[in-house]
Amino acid sequence: STEKLDNEWKLVQEDFPKLEKIHDEYIQKSRQVSKFQDTAGKAMKHHNYLLKNFRETMKQTQMAIDKLAPCEEKTALIAHLKKLREEQEVTNLRLRDMQGELPAQSNGFYLNLILGSNLNISLLTKTEKFKYKEEYEGFKWNITILICVLAFISWMWPFRVLDSLLCFLMVWYYCTLTIRESVLRVNGSKIKGWWLSHHYLSCAVPGIVLTWKDGLCYQEFRPYFLVFTFYISIVQLAQNQYQSGCLRRLHSLGQGHQMDITVEGFTSWQFKGLTFLLPFLTVGYLFQLFLAGKLYMYVNTEMCDGLWQVWALSLLLGAIAGGNIVTTSMVCIRKLKT
Amino acid sequence: STEKLDNEWKLVQEDFPKLEKIHDEYIQKSRQVSKFQDTAGKAMKHHNYLLKNFRETMKQTQMAIDKLAPCEEKTALIAHLKKLREEQEVTNLRLRDMQGELPAQSNGFYLNLILGSNLNISLLTKTEKFKYKEEYEGFKWNITILICVLAFISWMWPFRVLDSLLCFLMVWYYCTLTIRESVLRVNGSKIKGWWLSHHYLSCAVPGIVLTWKDGLCYQEFRPYFLVFTFYISIVQLAQNQYQSGCLRRLHSLGQGHQMDITVEGFTSWQFKGLTFLLPFLTVGYLFQLFLAGKLYMYVNTEMCDGLWQVWALSLLLGAIAGGNIVTTSMVCIRKLKT
Ligand SMILES: CC(C)(COP(=O)(O)OP(=O)(O)OC[C@H]1O[C@@H](n2cnc3c(N)ncnc32)[C@H](O)[C@@H]1OP(=O)(O)O)[C@@H](O)C(=O)NCCC(=O)NCCS
Ligand SMILES: CC(C)(COP(=O)(O)OP(=O)(O)OC[C@H]1O[C@@H](n2cnc3c(N)ncnc32)[C@H](O)[C@@H]1OP(=O)(O)O)[C@@H](O)C(=O)NCCC(=O)NCCS
Repeated sequence: STEKLDNEWKLVQEDFPKLEKIHDEYIQKSRQVSKFQDTAGKAMKHHNYLLKNFRETMKQTQMAIDKLAPCEEKTALIAHLKKLREEQEVTNLRLRDMQGELPAQSNGFYLNLILGSNLNISLLTKTEKFKYKEEYEGFKWNITILICVLAFISWMWPFRVLDSLLCFLMVWYYCTLTIRESVLRVNGSKIKGWWLSHHYLSCAVPGIVLTWKDGLCYQEFRPYFLVFTFYISIVQLAQNQYQSGCLRRLHSLGQGHQMDITVEGFTSWQFKGLTFLLPFLTVGYLFQLFLAGKLYMYVNTEMCDGLWQVWALSLLLGAIAGGNIVTTSMVCIRKLKT
Repeated sequence: STEKLDNEWKLVQEDFPKLEKIHDEYIQKSRQVSKFQDTAGKAMKHHNYLLKNFRETMKQTQMAIDKLAPCEEKTALIAHLKKLREEQEVTNLRLRDMQGELPAQSNGFYLNLILGSNLNISLLTKTEKFKYKEEYEGFKWNITILICVLAFISWMWPFRVLDSLLCFLMVWYYCTLTIRESVLRVNGSKIKGWWLSHHYLSCAVPGIVLTWKDGLCYQEFRPYFLVFTFYISIVQLAQNQYQSGCLRRLHSLGQGHQMDITVEGFTSWQFKGLTFLLPFLTVGYLFQLFLAGKLYMYVNTEMCDGLWQVWALSLLLGAIAGGNIVTTSMVCIRKLKT
């Protein structure tokens, strides 16, 4: 009566050596690949060293040439240097791609702290990188909608618990953003340092609001804060649309898909998107400055006596607005130039 | 005068094809390894399917045998089943090792939410797993000391800002723990589900304290909370020592190092550690229950009117204490049995 059981055990037993063989082959290949990876990493380091030397000499030569009086030789030298630079640009693109296929050297301080230092979080192919970024944009979209809804609910039903819930969600959201953005950065995203810092600071804002003792002062500030949160979230949804659009288009450009997308088409689309966004962003930044100013007025009034949150928030919002304005202007100026 | 520059550019140019060759070889090997990994994963799935069938039949056969009247055949069958089970146990160990060398199927809901779903966070070798866990224990140690110090400072200088700082640190610490522990779990750690839930709940406790409006009620609760935090941190330091000890010893056992460590030596050490820890843990759990009760008494007093934090914390602390007591008892009973 144990025939069926014996048969099934035989099947398992027969399968096991096969499994072991396949598995051992896989392990062997992985070990090999680690070695190849190390070798490739070392070769890359060596090449970067050579490049660094070359660039330094280039700088020195440039300076030496600049000092020459204008003459025929000078023009020839300048032309020569230009040629070298162009040649180097060509290999540079390929070099950056190759670098992206090697695991990152280090995860950076923040990710080491949160995730531990020996977790390998490299995304080694373009498709993986694209998928990760796409998911990041999707995550932003979903949570921002949730924040909008919660801000609206808090507005309709003015209970402090709901405010706290909203603030907790925002702290959590911005924390998670910083983690995901650090992962993106390790994998070669060119997201500006300021936006990362912006999200650290944006964590602190709702965090501080959480600790604000309920009372007249808080009640005065509350409606502004809710409207501000709501407005910023809406702007972020628009910005999110723009950035997912950029991402998808860039990806199909890179993949050479025949999606009727050309480089010119992309730049003109990006330009349109930016000009649409900019007014809303500007209003947002002015709103931030207004809030910072409003809070600054509260400081030292009787109503807000002894509340460190008031000046802390005022400072934070001012800093955020300043950084945003500077960074966005710089990005826009750079885009207009090219 | 551009001789040096030209020479260096030549070096770079000559190096580039070499680099490309090495890199292409590496990419080719990685692609291969992905294929082998897929094959190994599929083979593993198939084997697990066979095993599942076998186990089910085993259960059915066992039930059929149990129904038989005692006779010679029954004894023979029982012995046969026992033999099969033992044989299976032997391959099972190796199977689990092999499974640990394959990337995890999914990161789970929480890590998908925080890190994104297509980040590969598998640690594929035992050394990597060990290092990761070691760093995790080190992280716990450092931050717990920081929490101790901050709790002490808050006690000495009773400012609400310091309390908030401490609470923020604790929220951040427990959040980070949940992330790291989820990574550990994906990589095969057998940490009980309760300890993970415990850390989610432990996030909520300081989070709620943050939102607690300053006043008589809070001031009444504050010293208990600080002493409790301080005490729990000290206990956690001891527990951390015990767990790093376990980890190091288990690792040297697994590695077959001749560190005078035997299985018996390990179990007796573990036993000693546990009996040292248990009284402190028990006091900690009683403290938690005491705090929960104390807060429960505050509910509906005039002093704490309208503060939802009071009953929320009471509930939370009660739940945490209950879960801790049940889980720790179960772990200890299991350890005593074997
Ligand atoms: C001005 C802006 C539209 C330009 O976007 P852009 O055209 O993508 O800018 P860049 O070309 O410099 O982007 C470089 C990289 O940074 C990323 N990036 C730019 N701004 C970002 C932001 N605010 N958050 C996250 N990532 C950002 C891009 O996705 C891109 O990533 P990639 O290298 O992986 O492709 C954008 O920076 C922006 O919306 N800023 C305003 C954000 C803000 O102020 N929020 C607060 C609300 S008031
Ligand atoms: C009771 C106790 C000492 C047993 O520890 P143990 O002997 O390692 O228990 P187990 O054998 O069940 O451990 C299984 C795994 O879970 C891990 N683990 C056990 N308790 C853990 C905890 N509290 N936190 C994190 N990980 C834990 C172990 O490190 C081990 O990991 P591994 O599979 O990667 O090797 C431990 O669970 C403990 O200290 N619990 C009390 C924690 C507590 O109550 N804290 C609040 C303060 S009052």
